[in-house]
Amino acid sequence: LKVFSLNSNRELASQIAEVIGVELGKCSVSRFSDGEIQINIEESIRGCDVFVIQSTNTPINEHLMELLIMIDALKRASAKTINVVMPYYGYARQDRKARAREPITAKLVANLIETAGATRVITLDLHAPQIQGFFDIPIDHLMGVPILAEYFKNREYGGDIVVVSPDHGGVVRARKLADRLKAPIAIIDKRRPRPNVAEVMNIVGNIEGKICILIDDIIDTAGTITLAASALVESGATEVYACCTHPVLSGPAIERIENSKIKELVVTNSISLPEEKKIDKIKNLSVASLMAEAI
Amino acid sequence: LKVFSLNSNRELASQIAEVIGVELGKCSVSRFSDGEIQINIEESIRGCDVFVIQSTNTPINEHLMELLIMIDALKRASAKTINVVMPYYGYARQDRKARAREPITAKLVANLIETAGATRVITLDLHAPQIQGFFDIPIDHLMGVPILAEYFKNREYGGDIVVVSPDHGGVVRARKLADRLKAPIAIIDKRRPRPNVAEVMNIVGNIEGKICILIDDIIDTAGTITLAASALVESGATEVYACCTHPVLSGPAIERIENSKIKELVVTNSISLPEEKKIDKIKNLSVASLMAEAI
Ligand SMILES: Nc1ncnc2c1ncn2[C@@H]1O[C@H](COP(=O)(O)O)[C@@H](O)[C@H]1O
Ligand SMILES: Nc1ncnc2c1ncn2[C@@H]1O[C@H](COP(=O)(O)O)[C@@H](O)[C@H]1O
Repeated sequence: LKVFSLNSNRELASQIAEVIGVELGKCSVSRFSDGEIQINIEESIRGCDVFVIQSTNTPINEHLMELLIMIDALKRASAKTINVVMPYYGYARQDRKARAREPITAKLVANLIETAGATRVITLDLHAPQIQGFFDIPIDHLMGVPILAEYFKNREYGGDIVVVSPDHGGVVRARKLADRLKAPIAIIDKRRPRPNVAEVMNIVGNIEGKICILIDDIIDTAGTITLAASALVESGATEVYACCTHPVLSGPAIERIENSKIKELVVTNSISLPEEKKIDKIKNLSVASLMAEAI
Repeated sequence: LKVFSLNSNRELASQIAEVIGVELGKCSVSRFSDGEIQINIEESIRGCDVFVIQSTNTPINEHLMELLIMIDALKRASAKTINVVMPYYGYARQDRKARAREPITAKLVANLIETAGATRVITLDLHAPQIQGFFDIPIDHLMGVPILAEYFKNREYGGDIVVVSPDHGGVVRARKLADRLKAPIAIIDKRRPRPNVAEVMNIVGNIEGKICILIDDIIDTAGTITLAASALVESGATEVYACCTHPVLSGPAIERIENSKIKELVVTNSISLPEEKKIDKIKNLSVASLMAEAI
């Protein structure tokens, strides 16, 4: 068994290797002068079960190509199995044709990973669980909710808690967290009464005087989650926490979170946060043990 | 017949469309906030023969993923055929395992393009013609030498010319140019007499008092070509010109060319040169008509 890390998330990779009790495999992933990726695997892997740890977060196309080229190199070096550990699956939101002539990039990515030569994929909280079906190789789909639940369970609150889904699509996820916290759920029910009229944030469920925990899978620009937090406070919530598995946090996200009603945002290290995104309000939980168990 | 351009080489794409006498297809290629590629094809292409123009030069991984996602979108929008026009084929130098456990990225790229759904590829001066065999779909391999030859033929010289290959690998190419210019060839024969001793530039062929034209397929950091030019001048060449099909020109290339003995460097627009690389010494020829003929 050999574990290799590419460039997206070396810290998580080290943690995973530590939990398993192996050293990370030796391999350099650099760039030629013109920007082409150069990979050198510096130890024999012939006949080995190889695990490659790489999230496909920003810069996604770089991280994805690193992964594909690494898989190609492992295949040609006679690895017995090539197991892709992909805590964050990029392009997952492009998972269907919402409009005419759109690509389904999540499916393309699955095809590319298989074509390169992966024999198994281990991933976490896919934006849509249907993406599992995009693969013809075995895929392990892990869940981040237990990790988030564990954290919230061990906290002290000055009142009753309610788990809140920021939209209809997230209700199943909210239900799972609520079960573990033995709490009720509420849903933010966005509606546009007429075209060209601002959306109305209606809240389904009782949150008045309660402590709310918003949950989503991905927080990207943080527009949805921070607006949801405001709506909750305006409707009488006493405190608002938020959590997600994948902290994409692009564009105005950090500024929005800083200025929002969210007291604390709990995320996992499926995506490694650069220093400038490590703000006090963000609590980072590790998925290393979870991923290591699946290996 | 529909012709679409992605982001790598819009100027060449416009020229090609003009030669063929069609408008470029409407399609937007942009980025989501987190850097994921978003493609919208804005006109119907059902049942059409579609040509997509994209070189995979720097930033190569961005350009390659744009291409793959575009092919996916075209396939799902029921294009009849998807023809990839790729004047510059990136990763072509990673075309064999030179050392243990190296990837063969040129083959991986071929597999990715086929997997995405391309039905035919049109390309220009592959680093190794063997890359044609990496594809199981038809591939048209065009040659830039006639365009370069035409330019040098129509110039005035104050003496005899010799075509020079900067290394052994380029002799076939040099021979082709020499035939068209009715000139002899010479070869720069680099050798390292003993390990850890500087390379010796030996010149095979008569270049004394002659005007030399160096030819290569790719000029990347320009180390090889500028050293070759110095060696030629030291050995008595009166003037040195250089030419190549693909001006990658990364890192110190422009500075080296400026400071070199090369009087003029003739390149094609298979790779679009950014403004800061458009220096007086570089003459840019268009491959639009050549590519258009193959369409
Ligand atoms: N990287 C991205 N950033 C923002 N939106 C995206 C991204 N990728 C896909 N989308 C869009 O998000 C929508 C899907 O999100 P959802 O409805 O939450 O599943 C689709 O309309 C996509 O066009
Ligand atoms: N983008 C690149 N820049 C520089 N060298 C490369 C690049 N891609 C591959 N190579 C190396 O170039 C060599 C092949 O070049 P050649 O001998 O000219 O075919 C191989 O040893 C590769 O490792």
